[in-house]
Amino acid sequence: MNAAEFSAPVRSLMDIDFYKFTMGQVIWQYYPDVEVTFKLIIRDKDIPVGEIIPEDQLRESLDYVRDLTFSRTDIYYLRGMNLHQDYMFKEGYLDFLRTLKLPPYRLVRKGKEIELSFTGKWAEVSMWETIALAVISELYYRAVMKTMSKHELELVYARAMDKLSRKLEELQKFPRITFSDFGQRRRHSFLWQEWAIGLAKSMMGEQFIGTSNTWMAFRHDLSPIGTNAHEMPMVLVALAPDKDKVDAQYEPLRLWEKTYNQSLRIFLPDTYGTKQFLDNAPECVAAWRGMRQDSNDPVSRGRMYINWLRKWEIDPKSKLMIPSDGLDVESMKRIDRELGDEINLSDGWGSLFTNDFRGTSSNLLLRPFSMVCKVVRANDFPCIKLSDNLDKVTGPKEEIERYKKIFGVEGLSSSRVYV
Amino acid sequence: MNAAEFSAPVRSLMDIDFYKFTMGQVIWQYYPDVEVTFKLIIRDKDIPVGEIIPEDQLRESLDYVRDLTFSRTDIYYLRGMNLHQDYMFKEGYLDFLRTLKLPPYRLVRKGKEIELSFTGKWAEVSMWETIALAVISELYYRAVMKTMSKHELELVYARAMDKLSRKLEELQKFPRITFSDFGQRRRHSFLWQEWAIGLAKSMMGEQFIGTSNTWMAFRHDLSPIGTNAHEMPMVLVALAPDKDKVDAQYEPLRLWEKTYNQSLRIFLPDTYGTKQFLDNAPECVAAWRGMRQDSNDPVSRGRMYINWLRKWEIDPKSKLMIPSDGLDVESMKRIDRELGDEINLSDGWGSLFTNDFRGTSSNLLLRPFSMVCKVVRANDFPCIKLSDNLDKVTGPKEEIERYKKIFGVEGLSSSRVYV
Repeated sequence: MNAAEFSAPVRSLMDIDFYKFTMGQVIWQYYPDVEVTFKLIIRDKDIPVGEIIPEDQLRESLDYVRDLTFSRTDIYYLRGMNLHQDYMFKEGYLDFLRTLKLPPYRLVRKGKEIELSFTGKWAEVSMWETIALAVISELYYRAVMKTMSKHELELVYARAMDKLSRKLEELQKFPRITFSDFGQRRRHSFLWQEWAIGLAKSMMGEQFIGTSNTWMAFRHDLSPIGTNAHEMPMVLVALAPDKDKVDAQYEPLRLWEKTYNQSLRIFLPDTYGTKQFLDNAPECVAAWRGMRQDSNDPVSRGRMYINWLRKWEIDPKSKLMIPSDGLDVESMKRIDRELGDEINLSDGWGSLFTNDFRGTSSNLLLRPFSMVCKVVRANDFPCIKLSDNLDKVTGPKEEIERYKKIFGVEGLSSSRVYV
Repeated sequence: MNAAEFSAPVRSLMDIDFYKFTMGQVIWQYYPDVEVTFKLIIRDKDIPVGEIIPEDQLRESLDYVRDLTFSRTDIYYLRGMNLHQDYMFKEGYLDFLRTLKLPPYRLVRKGKEIELSFTGKWAEVSMWETIALAVISELYYRAVMKTMSKHELELVYARAMDKLSRKLEELQKFPRITFSDFGQRRRHSFLWQEWAIGLAKSMMGEQFIGTSNTWMAFRHDLSPIGTNAHEMPMVLVALAPDKDKVDAQYEPLRLWEKTYNQSLRIFLPDTYGTKQFLDNAPECVAAWRGMRQDSNDPVSRGRMYINWLRKWEIDPKSKLMIPSDGLDVESMKRIDRELGDEINLSDGWGSLFTNDFRGTSSNLLLRPFSMVCKVVRANDFPCIKLSDNLDKVTGPKEEIERYKKIFGVEGLSSSRVYV
C-alpha cells in the first residue's frame, strides 16, 4: 500500500478515553512495578475481524501509534485543566506522559480471528485499551465499505446522518435527559465521531455534557469525561490472596480518595457483581458522588443503588447515576422514566452514538459489534471480571468458578451483549 | 458581501502576540483603573490603507473579533504552560481572560486614510494591538490582490515560497543564528504565517526558537515567545509628574521582577532612548537576562549594552540580546558577525519573515509597510515614545519636545523605517 493513500485511524495519543489519564495517574503512582497483559476480545463471534482487516494495515496503524508522543501543547492542556479538580495531574505523572511511548504489541493471525495483546508496565500498557479498539473498529469498517460504489457510500452516510439527527431530535423532547459521548472505542471512524460530536454540540445545548475522548474535548472545547474502570479492581483483586480478594475490590476506591475529590468520585461496582459490592462496601462509599452502571438492567441496578443509599439514610436525589452499557435513545428514555424522579442521571452513550449504521445498507457486517481490550494477567496472576451479566465475563473458566465462589453469584444473570 | 464568502482575518483571541498576556497580567494586577486609547498609525504615507481596504470588510472583521471569547481549551493551555515559569498566569488573571470581550473600536474614514482607535480599560484595550494590525494587514493584501488572475496569484505565491525558502537555506549556513517568528502583526495573511512557520519548523531545527503568535505556538507545538513592550513605560511615564518621569521608565521593570523570573526578564530600553536608559538604570537591571533592541542600528545598540555590562563587571557572554527591528537575513548575518562572539543573540524576525512578497509581482503595493497600533493617551495624559530612531517617534509635537528635554536626545538619530 502506498503510504500516501493510507491514513492511520488514531493519529494522536490524545485520541484516547480521558479515564486512561485519571486511572493512569493512580496506577503510575501506586503500582509502578506491576506488569500486565491487555488482550483484544471480540465478543461477537459472527464478526470475522481477522479475515476482514488487512494485517498490513493493522500493523501499520499500530506502529503509527507507537511512534506518537504527547506534544507540549497536549501536556499544557492536561496540566492547566481545572474542570473536575485543580491541578489534577501531578508533575511526576505529566513527566511520565512527556516521554511515554506505547509499548510493543503482539499480533498473531489465526484464521478468521486475530490475537492482539500488549504486555509491559501497567501504566504504559493501559494506554493501549481504547486506542487499539478504535484502530480495529475503523479498519474493520473501512474494509467492509471498501467495495461500495461512490453512490452506495453517499447513501450510507446520508442515512447514518439522518439516523443520528433523528435520535437527537427525539432526545430534545426529553430535556431532563443528558448524555456524554462515550463512543471512541467502537466508533465508525475518527471523522464520524467528530461529526457526531459536532452535531450533538450544535443541537443539544445543555443536554450534551461532554465527551470521553480527550482529543475531541481539547479540539472542540468540551468537557472531558471519565473516571475509573474495571481494570483497577481486576488487577488489584488478582494480586490479592483469596482471603483478601473481596476487600481488594475497594482498594481502587481508597487510592482514588487519596487522589481525586468529590467531582471524580464515581464508582463502578459491577466487576464482581453489584449486589455483593454494595452489601460489603464500607460506609465511605455511600458518600461518593455517584455510580456508573455498566452491565445488566440499568433500572434494576439503579434501584439497587437507590435502596442501598436509603439504607445509609442518604437522599438518592443528591447522587448521580451514569448508565453506560449499550445505551440508545429508547433505553435512555426508559431509564429516565423509571429512575429520573428518584436520582440524577447522566448517560454515557457509546457505540450507538458514534457507530449506528444499522439499516443504512444491505451489508449486515456494517453493524456495531461487541469487543473489548481487557487486562487478562497481572504479575502472572489471571485477571477476572464477572460483571452483572454472565455474557460479559472474562477470564479462564476454572478461575471464573473460583471467583464466583469467593464473591457469590447473587444478582448475576445473562443477557446478549450487542455492543 | 455574502457571509459565506468572507472569512475574518483573525478568528481566535489566541491569534495574538504572547507578550499581550505577559504584559496584560501586570497591567491587570497593578493598573486596573487606568483608561487608555490605542491608535492605529500608518507610518508609511505611500500606502493608502483607507482607500484600499473596503470599510465594510474592516468593520465586519473587527466585529468578528469583538464576538470572540477565550475557549476552555485556550485557558487550560495558558494555565498549564510551564515553559518560562511555572503557573505564570495567576487565577485572577485567567478569570479575567475567561470573560474578556474586546472593547469597542472607533473607525472613521478620512479620504485615503482611516482613523482607528480603541478606548477603555488598559488591560482590555491593550489586547487589540496586534489583532487590529493583523486584521488591517491581511485585508490590505487581499484587496491589493483582488484583481489578480488565478495565474498571477499562483506565480506570486510560488515566488514568495521560493524567496522564503532561500532565506532559510542561507540561514542554515550560519548555525549560530537563531530566530523566532515575530511576524503576526504585519503578516501577509494568517495562512501565510502558518505556512512560513511550518517551513521554518521543518527546515531549521534548533535554529528556529519559537513564535510570538500564541495560536501558532498552541497549534504547532512551538515555544510562545514574548515579554514586554513600549506601552508599559509609555503609560507609566505619562502618568508620572515631570520630575519623576525618568525614574518612571523603570517602574515596569520593578513590577516585572515581582511577577516573572529570570527567563522572562528581557528589558526594552529604547522608549526614551537607550543611552539615557542605561546611564540612569539601577544596578538590578544589569542582572536581567537580556535586552531587546528595537530601533536604530542593532550593532551600535548591542555595543552600547555590552559596554554597559562591562561597566558593571558582567560578562556579556552570560547575556542575551534580541534584535527585533525590521530584520532580514543580511542584517541577521551582520549582527551575528559583529556581535556573535561577544554576546548571545536570538533574533525576532517579523515582517520580512511573514510578509516578504517584494518582487513577486509588478504591483508595488504588495510590499510590507510600516504601521503600529500604539497607546496615545492614558487617563487624559498624552503618551509619547521617542525611541532611538526619530522616525519612530510617536506623540504630539510639543509633548515630544518636552520629553526630549526631560530625557535628553543623546544617541537618537533618524533612519527610514521600512517595516
